[in-house]
Amino acid sequence: MAVLYGNAIVGQSGGPTAAINATLSGVIRGAMEAKDIIGTLYGMRNGMEGLLAENFIDLTARMQTEEDFTSLEATPSAALGSCRLKLPSPEKERAIYEKVLSVFQKYNIRYFFYIGGNDSMDAVAKLSAFFQEKSYEVRIIGVPKTIDNDLAGTDHSPGFGSAAKYIATTMKEILCDCAVYTIPAVTIVEIMGRDAGWLATAAALPSLTGIGPDYIYLPERAFSIPAFLESLRRALALHPNVVVAISEGIRVEDGRYVSEGQQNGMLDAFGHKYLSGAGKTLEMLVKQELKCKVRSIELNLPQRCASHLSSETDIKESVLIGKAAVKHAIEGSYGKMMAFLRQKGEPYSVDIAPIPVEEVANAVRHVPDTYINKEGNGVTKECLDYLMPLIQGEAPCVYECGMPKHFVF
Amino acid sequence: MAVLYGNAIVGQSGGPTAAINATLSGVIRGAMEAKDIIGTLYGMRNGMEGLLAENFIDLTARMQTEEDFTSLEATPSAALGSCRLKLPSPEKERAIYEKVLSVFQKYNIRYFFYIGGNDSMDAVAKLSAFFQEKSYEVRIIGVPKTIDNDLAGTDHSPGFGSAAKYIATTMKEILCDCAVYTIPAVTIVEIMGRDAGWLATAAALPSLTGIGPDYIYLPERAFSIPAFLESLRRALALHPNVVVAISEGIRVEDGRYVSEGQQNGMLDAFGHKYLSGAGKTLEMLVKQELKCKVRSIELNLPQRCASHLSSETDIKESVLIGKAAVKHAIEGSYGKMMAFLRQKGEPYSVDIAPIPVEEVANAVRHVPDTYINKEGNGVTKECLDYLMPLIQGEAPCVYECGMPKHFVF
Repeated sequence: MAVLYGNAIVGQSGGPTAAINATLSGVIRGAMEAKDIIGTLYGMRNGMEGLLAENFIDLTARMQTEEDFTSLEATPSAALGSCRLKLPSPEKERAIYEKVLSVFQKYNIRYFFYIGGNDSMDAVAKLSAFFQEKSYEVRIIGVPKTIDNDLAGTDHSPGFGSAAKYIATTMKEILCDCAVYTIPAVTIVEIMGRDAGWLATAAALPSLTGIGPDYIYLPERAFSIPAFLESLRRALALHPNVVVAISEGIRVEDGRYVSEGQQNGMLDAFGHKYLSGAGKTLEMLVKQELKCKVRSIELNLPQRCASHLSSETDIKESVLIGKAAVKHAIEGSYGKMMAFLRQKGEPYSVDIAPIPVEEVANAVRHVPDTYINKEGNGVTKECLDYLMPLIQGEAPCVYECGMPKHFVF
Repeated sequence: MAVLYGNAIVGQSGGPTAAINATLSGVIRGAMEAKDIIGTLYGMRNGMEGLLAENFIDLTARMQTEEDFTSLEATPSAALGSCRLKLPSPEKERAIYEKVLSVFQKYNIRYFFYIGGNDSMDAVAKLSAFFQEKSYEVRIIGVPKTIDNDLAGTDHSPGFGSAAKYIATTMKEILCDCAVYTIPAVTIVEIMGRDAGWLATAAALPSLTGIGPDYIYLPERAFSIPAFLESLRRALALHPNVVVAISEGIRVEDGRYVSEGQQNGMLDAFGHKYLSGAGKTLEMLVKQELKCKVRSIELNLPQRCASHLSSETDIKESVLIGKAAVKHAIEGSYGKMMAFLRQKGEPYSVDIAPIPVEEVANAVRHVPDTYINKEGNGVTKECLDYLMPLIQGEAPCVYECGMPKHFVF
């Protein structure tokens, strides 16, 4: 295949993570190493919004020192900004596609890297299909990013390992905190994950070093309120401090979210369903039913932005997958998403390879059955074996005035 | 004064912090260095509960290596367990005091160290007064501990610096996270502090490195809902991502907590006041009034137990104040609380000295007027100057299986 000379552009999309800037750094590193082929690497501000508005940063010029890169890699959230734009099909909004074409032509853009989750891979698929019908050659590649770990085709997604490390650490610290009193108490920790329970599985990791939460509930299993209360009673009979982890997206048997709080006479207790997440809803329920001290803790945004505690494995892999995207594009790939393929055996290692983006775009990868225990209230050893390598190592973090230093474009 | 030979006992009380075990470590270090005077140092399980039940650990025997100490110092929460017992007066429950006397006699306890907050200092004051009337000599000393930083007589309390570092760091990361989208949004971060706003002031620290929250509201000022909404409108006119920090204990003009949510037609919006903290209450209000995207984040327990991110200054000082308590007790102090006295001038330094515990026992130290801006929605440079030294340095944290390693008795 002939070498494709020209410029490149990169964007970030969807919810931020602690690793999405490490992937961006990898793309920039890759492009700069290929400077004989890629002249300028542009960064689009706020993903597709910036592409359409020609709101660019010249990344090749901006990134000067190794410290620029390591600082970017240690910065949470999306340094280029993000967007939530779901790209319509060319049949619906052809003008958008024509605009993209004209921008590509104007800036001689031959490589397009989009770092994001499901919607972003959908955009990669649509743009790639569009440009295959055109005489203008551009190689469009997706790079995965999601703390939810629900992207298909890849062993795991960049960002997940750091979120998992934050959740495991915080759960371990909460377990310490909850252990101090002798009066019976239930603590419910609500973890992100609307459709897939990957993040909540990470709450089980402290059990590998001694003590873990009593139960973990995932959206992959219907949530039974009677069984939940019975489990709590059983645990409280054994020790005073019961700790439970739940995914925000757990649902009762009829499919309604627990956070809707309208089954089992729970309506009275909460009134306005938009007020409470699943944790708060269950806090009210347990207080009412078991009459003991109950607390709910929503881990919230720090799960995805606590980069002072990033997984070194995650950050390193995120850089590598960004670099690999550039390499494979130069070698001729397009319409692909870069994926991690875990190698069999010990020690843990991954290959990075491009896979067809259509296989990813509209699929959700759930926690598999073999990772969930029979009772549906915990995870298996196989699940812990899967998770463990992803949280290893502490990514470097530089402090300034006692706080982590962040990179700003 | 004659040297008082005998055994010693130490307990932890009240809410856990990231530094209370460092203070415990300091007491143990101090006692072991004075082994010619103090034979055995006992640890009481669950504070006064363990004292009355004679539920002790022989700390002198248990702590063998330097690693035991450093590991204990890096462990959050109260390793000996805690209690919430408010000691009644001798007039009301003389039997408790007589029981304490008999336990002290039985174990030949001549030194009593109690690490805790307000209620614990009250217990220290009462016990000390009781034993002054007795022929049995025992030196009772309090060592401060509270993330709330509201203990009188000391420049700051062990535990506050680490909580402040966690809050500053998390606020900085949340600011990064919130900056990625271009649509107008308000993020409300709820920080611990029922009566004193010290912890919420720490949310201002990121402003020293570039960008801080738009506004900070403390319980020291009456909270005006119209002024709050007007401030948000003003900020949203300038930039899309408005971030606000609030103390959980903010109150409206008539003294009711904002979390009671019953003023200004807010009753309808929440129904059950126990459901929502101040952050959730204001989230509902802002959504209703400004019709923009609103999110509330309750930092919750990690504020007091995230010891993976402890302030090195805080942990070091916490060890030192524990050691100093032993030294001063041996030298003859009793009925005192150890306190930090900040020295004038740069660089930052503190002296540690005993102060009369009665001055502490029933006082609450608020954020002073000179630390709060004129509008009551932010802090002054004087406040930042006070806070900054307390969050400096990162305390060592040993990882095991990708998670912080904790010490267990």
